[in-house]
Amino acid sequence: MKLLRFGEMNAEKPGVLDANGGLRDLSGIVDDIAGETLSAEGLAKIAALDLSSLPLVEGNPRIGACVGNVGKFVCIGLNYSDHAAEAGMQVPEEPVTFFKATSAICGPNDNIEIPRTSERTDWEVELGVVIGKHTKYVSEEDALDHVAGYCIVNDLSERDFQMKRSGQWVKGKSADTFGPIGPWLVTRDDVVDPQNLAMYLEVNGLRYQNGSTNTMVFSVARVISHLSQFMSLQPGDVISTGTPPGVGMGQKPPVFLKPGDKVELGVEGLGVQKQVAYAAE
Amino acid sequence: MKLLRFGEMNAEKPGVLDANGGLRDLSGIVDDIAGETLSAEGLAKIAALDLSSLPLVEGNPRIGACVGNVGKFVCIGLNYSDHAAEAGMQVPEEPVTFFKATSAICGPNDNIEIPRTSERTDWEVELGVVIGKHTKYVSEEDALDHVAGYCIVNDLSERDFQMKRSGQWVKGKSADTFGPIGPWLVTRDDVVDPQNLAMYLEVNGLRYQNGSTNTMVFSVARVISHLSQFMSLQPGDVISTGTPPGVGMGQKPPVFLKPGDKVELGVEGLGVQKQVAYAAE
Repeated sequence: MKLLRFGEMNAEKPGVLDANGGLRDLSGIVDDIAGETLSAEGLAKIAALDLSSLPLVEGNPRIGACVGNVGKFVCIGLNYSDHAAEAGMQVPEEPVTFFKATSAICGPNDNIEIPRTSERTDWEVELGVVIGKHTKYVSEEDALDHVAGYCIVNDLSERDFQMKRSGQWVKGKSADTFGPIGPWLVTRDDVVDPQNLAMYLEVNGLRYQNGSTNTMVFSVARVISHLSQFMSLQPGDVISTGTPPGVGMGQKPPVFLKPGDKVELGVEGLGVQKQVAYAAE
Repeated sequence: MKLLRFGEMNAEKPGVLDANGGLRDLSGIVDDIAGETLSAEGLAKIAALDLSSLPLVEGNPRIGACVGNVGKFVCIGLNYSDHAAEAGMQVPEEPVTFFKATSAICGPNDNIEIPRTSERTDWEVELGVVIGKHTKYVSEEDALDHVAGYCIVNDLSERDFQMKRSGQWVKGKSADTFGPIGPWLVTRDDVVDPQNLAMYLEVNGLRYQNGSTNTMVFSVARVISHLSQFMSLQPGDVISTGTPPGVGMGQKPPVFLKPGDKVELGVEGLGVQKQVAYAAE
């Protein structure tokens, strides 16, 4: 299933794509694509519906982040060996972990706000993992049972804020609009192999990132198991699993986003995001 | 006012202390001590009540975290010069910022779970700041207008997870129960000077931390203004502003929590927290 949220920011309704790609309104069935709706039972309830019986949404509403009420937005850094090399860093022995602010989350096609004073706003196409049940001290073997589904994340990053503003990456990862998520949450049963998904990112039509999740250093299962040794995960938590090579700071010379730039990114089977950059007022 | 939340974990009700220290049930007035209830208007509505007209809560219910539905749990590191020295680190040029998992939040007197494999679980008494309105690019001068109130935070930290598990502190800061908050959210009007509050922490009756917010490197106003350059803050976000000297890893030899240890901590005017440590199953 492809689940999504549509409507104005902070007032999104839950929806699902039907077999013809039509958007069906789920708001009579569930409150949101969030929390317990993401459990195996919650998803089974939606899967059992006759989608043609649900209201068809007309027009082209805004698409919101595909998950609501995200409790934690966890990211894995340097999880593709080639990207670590372009960032001038070593492949870590264990998954490097940081959080993005949940207030950075926005819809997949919302515009990207370049923060005041920013000179190095950069992009990162990533595979996002949406947690579907309580997860604590889970084995790698059992980890994927805790996944509700997958989505695209653009892990936008201000490189000077991230690396030159007194340590810890969070300052460069958390600006408003720095976390487009979606368009769809594709449920786990519809993603045959999360470790074999092509992914790309283009700026103004020029392809900068062109990779596959098959070159991840730490697999989705390994990442979930590892994180669960340090914190518990809840339904609706989102884990962004790292980016392949081709970020702006890795170009020679480096390239960063400027107002008016058009960004497009995709992960195989998970849809496409399109954003336009603008300067913060 | 002293606002609080009482009852079972994840089902807390809002409450307020009356002039006699009695706990009054606010659940007929507001849904939770969270979100827009923390706005100036929301707090004014509670302040205008005749508290004696509210139900008096009998017995000794569990006290929960004093804020519900926390969106971001932001922490400032190395914000007391003496603590930086004991940690063997330099005082930073700007506030060091990291996030704790919101799933680490618990009540002020809930027991502390020492994670599996942990050998260095440590304590940090801190002044917590609860945001009351949307905050973005705010000046230091205006920053305190964005504060709903203050509370105690114990920023529990697993030092090996924090520093030896492939970078970024989040792994050592985010275990379940690593974020006791409360007992009360003391509204801003009842805290004369947040930069002059005595604070202490004892383990098994021995005083390890004994400080004052008057030795903070970056003031509450400076911290809020600074953070707001990098992310927006929302009502219910909690900022923990750093710890004075006396953490376990700073002792000679170092001291860390073990099952059965009793922790007590307080900040002037904000109450007391009492916790007992136990080992994760």
